[in-house]
Amino acid sequence: MNAEIIAVGSELLLGQIVNSNAQFISKELATLGVNVFYHTAVGDNSTRLTATIKTAQRRSNVIIFTGGLGPTKDDLTKETIASLLGRPLTYDEDAMEHIEDYFKRSKRQMSENNRKQALVLDGCHVLKNEFGMAPGMALQVEGITYILLPGPPKEMGPMFVNYAIPYLAALQPEAAPITSRVLRFFGIGESLLEATLQDIIDEQQNPTVAPLAGNHEVTLRLSAKFHDQKEALLALDQLEHRITERVGEFLYGYDETTLMKEAAQLFVQKGLTVAAAESLTGGGFGAEMTSLDGSSAYFLGSLVSYSNEMKEALLDIPSSLLKTEGAVSAACAELMAASARTKTGADIGISFTGVAGPQESEGKEVGTVFIGLSTNQKTTVHEVHISGSREAIRARTIKYGLFYLMDMVKKGQ
Amino acid sequence: MNAEIIAVGSELLLGQIVNSNAQFISKELATLGVNVFYHTAVGDNSTRLTATIKTAQRRSNVIIFTGGLGPTKDDLTKETIASLLGRPLTYDEDAMEHIEDYFKRSKRQMSENNRKQALVLDGCHVLKNEFGMAPGMALQVEGITYILLPGPPKEMGPMFVNYAIPYLAALQPEAAPITSRVLRFFGIGESLLEATLQDIIDEQQNPTVAPLAGNHEVTLRLSAKFHDQKEALLALDQLEHRITERVGEFLYGYDETTLMKEAAQLFVQKGLTVAAAESLTGGGFGAEMTSLDGSSAYFLGSLVSYSNEMKEALLDIPSSLLKTEGAVSAACAELMAASARTKTGADIGISFTGVAGPQESEGKEVGTVFIGLSTNQKTTVHEVHISGSREAIRARTIKYGLFYLMDMVKKGQ
Repeated sequence: MNAEIIAVGSELLLGQIVNSNAQFISKELATLGVNVFYHTAVGDNSTRLTATIKTAQRRSNVIIFTGGLGPTKDDLTKETIASLLGRPLTYDEDAMEHIEDYFKRSKRQMSENNRKQALVLDGCHVLKNEFGMAPGMALQVEGITYILLPGPPKEMGPMFVNYAIPYLAALQPEAAPITSRVLRFFGIGESLLEATLQDIIDEQQNPTVAPLAGNHEVTLRLSAKFHDQKEALLALDQLEHRITERVGEFLYGYDETTLMKEAAQLFVQKGLTVAAAESLTGGGFGAEMTSLDGSSAYFLGSLVSYSNEMKEALLDIPSSLLKTEGAVSAACAELMAASARTKTGADIGISFTGVAGPQESEGKEVGTVFIGLSTNQKTTVHEVHISGSREAIRARTIKYGLFYLMDMVKKGQ
Repeated sequence: MNAEIIAVGSELLLGQIVNSNAQFISKELATLGVNVFYHTAVGDNSTRLTATIKTAQRRSNVIIFTGGLGPTKDDLTKETIASLLGRPLTYDEDAMEHIEDYFKRSKRQMSENNRKQALVLDGCHVLKNEFGMAPGMALQVEGITYILLPGPPKEMGPMFVNYAIPYLAALQPEAAPITSRVLRFFGIGESLLEATLQDIIDEQQNPTVAPLAGNHEVTLRLSAKFHDQKEALLALDQLEHRITERVGEFLYGYDETTLMKEAAQLFVQKGLTVAAAESLTGGGFGAEMTSLDGSSAYFLGSLVSYSNEMKEALLDIPSSLLKTEGAVSAACAELMAASARTKTGADIGISFTGVAGPQESEGKEVGTVFIGLSTNQKTTVHEVHISGSREAIRARTIKYGLFYLMDMVKKGQ
């Protein structure tokens, strides 16, 4: 299958929104083993959309559309396809009911326009919209598969994953399905990870290994193509083992997890509470620790002491230490972590002090960061050096904090 | 001018990155009054790129390329265009020097590959790359303008704005330039703003008014097209006046500013210091207040008290009040703000308490938020109700905090 994605909407061409749908769909299709050769964005214009579809028909056998299924007269994707394929639009009873329900529930008045959203291409397979009104459509005409999806990502995403992917997978029952596993790493850069695993990355055919960096982390996506699911899992296990032999200390989780989700699970499981003393991060660690529902089970609070005066007033850091060692020091981080713990009664105190930049401070380079960890057993301090913007340094510092916290808890220290 | 944008890179088609360049360029071209009718993404494949360019030549007279100017053999944008246009590639001395400099400064070894990056289309106008190695190119062949830009957004963006835009503007000297002004609003939703200004939005021809929502704010972009700059500014002033007569209380700034930048300016100008007591926001307000360089001038710290016990321990909130009124109450917000101020010695204390969800709390609905403001003159509490996800509620709460702070300072309360 050779696929292409056509996004319909003048707001894309005016730069008002970014075409994140094309990225989402491409990523999913890659997992399915479907090649994507083109993305196109075209405005709400029937003539230009028709020309775009005709070009697509000559080069692809799966054409996926996003957008243009709304209730207004600007929305013309299905009308244009209907006219090009010579196929009428008919009312879909289920979709109509779904739309009426939607208005009833939100106690709003349905307009005549909204009825238009229940029109589907005659004979198509209707894709259910669980997060909006416009139904999606899938149909095959003369060897080409057409998939029509709504534009809003929160409607399109679930519809694509839950209904379009199974539809496409059923079209190639003979193809071996792809079983994927994402390994998530923190504390190692993309280039070092790749260099360490270069021979493995180069030699792998099935499963394949694809590194990807982003959001201050690195991931490896392992993809195995086997008819037998057991065989696929075994191959993934073997490959993962070869990888973790070399860089296992940096592996923190699998697939769609995050450092925060993993840390939260660990805290809940061990019944531990955490409190923070933040300088560099200004409260960002507390914000991260409270980002998940249920965070009050493990997070007590944070003492954000941005100035030296506040470090004295809120955390009892002696002014003599601030003068001799400086606020950006292992000694200060140690005391801050201990204060966070003792002042709140938390099991673990964590502290952050460092230089976010853009100027150096106290003679310490931009990116110098001290992270203190205090329990009633002992206090440890990690020194890290982070490059990048002020924003990047602060964001990575928070992740380092979670990483070291988890490491300490896992090691039972 | 009818433009289209062709992004070259298999990483786009695999969904590894999103095509943010197309959005950026489209937005800039809209300001210049240039129509964009298509975006295309195509892989690192000469045959498919050639076909894509041929299609573009039939329908557009400005073709803008991003990506494929790197040093590896996968990078083939300029090679493909050279071959299609029958135009050789020649070494550009300045670009070569720039690349050699780059390696000298970073003390790295230049490889033979990197020389390839100094090759440009013969006779082109070279666009300087201030943030990377690959030079951009602009040239006109048979009535069509070709602009080649590197893929990394941090290289492409400045190159496009500083060199490609002036090049394109010079091609249509007779066209009236567009003078734009962005009005930034907070505290009013997009639909209410649009409804309030509907007649103005509908009737405007020159200047035009374009609303855009995002990042929990709404903006209006006013664009005037006049040959005379004075005339343009006068028209923008008049239109702005008509708008602010109706919704001026929500206008907080112009163009590329942010609520935080405006607030920081105000605090510095008035010599005021701020401290916070955060529950709902978990430290996010402190993180925002310390996001800018120089923030220690106006931000002292934050007492993040996520649990009721911490509200008692860190902020002296009486347990009786937490029992009778609850932590999510105006009374609690008032005391929290006062504690933040008195415990730190700040001029202004601000507090945040509320229900982030997903479950309601203390019988209060998700999205119920109290923001307290305390000075040595008086304490006020704002109650707001915010819809959306946990993340959205917390993010908007922080912005409301900045908005109310500024409002109070401006009114001299």
